[in-house]
Amino acid sequence: MRALPLQAPVLGILGGLGPLATVDFLEKLTRLTPAGRDQGHVPWLTVSQPGTPDRSTAILAGEDAPREHLIRGVTFLAAQGVSLIAVPCNASHYWMPAMRAAVTVPILHIAEAAAAELRDMHGPGARVAVLGTRGTVAGGVYTEPLRAAEAHAVDLPETVQHGVDAAIEAVKGGRLDDGIEALGGVTGGLSGHAIDVAILACTELSVIWNRLADAPSAVDSSLALARTCLRTLGYASR
Amino acid sequence: MRALPLQAPVLGILGGLGPLATVDFLEKLTRLTPAGRDQGHVPWLTVSQPGTPDRSTAILAGEDAPREHLIRGVTFLAAQGVSLIAVPCNASHYWMPAMRAAVTVPILHIAEAAAAELRDMHGPGARVAVLGTRGTVAGGVYTEPLRAAEAHAVDLPETVQHGVDAAIEAVKGGRLDDGIEALGGVTGGLSGHAIDVAILACTELSVIWNRLADAPSAVDSSLALARTCLRTLGYASR
Repeated sequence: MRALPLQAPVLGILGGLGPLATVDFLEKLTRLTPAGRDQGHVPWLTVSQPGTPDRSTAILAGEDAPREHLIRGVTFLAAQGVSLIAVPCNASHYWMPAMRAAVTVPILHIAEAAAAELRDMHGPGARVAVLGTRGTVAGGVYTEPLRAAEAHAVDLPETVQHGVDAAIEAVKGGRLDDGIEALGGVTGGLSGHAIDVAILACTELSVIWNRLADAPSAVDSSLALARTCLRTLGYASR
Repeated sequence: MRALPLQAPVLGILGGLGPLATVDFLEKLTRLTPAGRDQGHVPWLTVSQPGTPDRSTAILAGEDAPREHLIRGVTFLAAQGVSLIAVPCNASHYWMPAMRAAVTVPILHIAEAAAAELRDMHGPGARVAVLGTRGTVAGGVYTEPLRAAEAHAVDLPETVQHGVDAAIEAVKGGRLDDGIEALGGVTGGLSGHAIDVAILACTELSVIWNRLADAPSAVDSSLALARTCLRTLGYASR
């Protein structure tokens, strides 16, 4: 079934994971597109499913509650005739094999997009801080992409992970100032760990990273995914 | 046909008119929602159709090229089972009768939303500057809503309309700094015209208004539409 009333190709986006992170991804996609007017932009279809159960909680508990929501989301997008699917939520990628098995439309992998940018920026051997939910870390979402990029994930101190958790929760609750404060503590806690670069491995962190007073260099998984969308669809990128 | 894999009710949004204005609307919708976590947010489906021909140009030329795109957009959204439709583009409302005739799902009117906020803020008799495309103004998108709100639209000097045009074009081209500069000239040009309040009657202006150094009080049509969506769907609003 091709139901979309649009020019092809159309980018499908599974959103709401969380809602503000989806908006941030869409803004990055739009701002990266070197169009001088509306008509040069990417046509897209975004379905926002904020009711999807929390991904990190499920991974840590060994539960599968988000799986069916994610599969129904990508199946819906594929049924509308989109050419490519992006899921701007890192923890959701724990279920990427199931999502990919459910549709024939290609689905980009956010950690592969981020790891490829990391490799381009730092070459092999980089020591990286993967800043994401505990589910993303424990679920190994970045394990294979970082291995392919020949990068080493550094184990983070509990205090740093605690700050990451607090920042993510604050953004999801619409308390951006609290999130920025928590993330500021995270960047301070990373010093002294011989880290070459941080990966923003949670799209909530992408929302606020650039609002930090002294944001260190980082690979933003949301930005990397947006760039990969444009390149895959044949668009240039600012 | 109800094809959406979501919890109901779902808000349908016809976007891409233009792309950055759609992102701004989605951000306002999200930030206005008083949810402490993902699961309290509005489920939505947004179709972005940036290839829709320019609305203002068509209105001024007496052409109907955008009509079919708009109808196909709302028809697509209605076919997916959305409960309510919003179109965050003022000029597109010139074709609102045709869009409403095409679907049974209710479609909110952005100018009615803005005029109702104007009336709440300023009471009857307000003298307003309708800052929008020449198509929105000449096409009378605000005529009836302002009459219902007992407000008076002031004729704008050509230099002011020229600045509005420049600001809108700059935002559509991703040149936000140019847009802010042009809009700064507009606010200067409005002084001395005994205007009580401006209406941001183009969603591109909504993107940059709050980035002005001394933004005067204004009714933001995009914000008013987002608030009306939440209220209509039974959500509280920050």
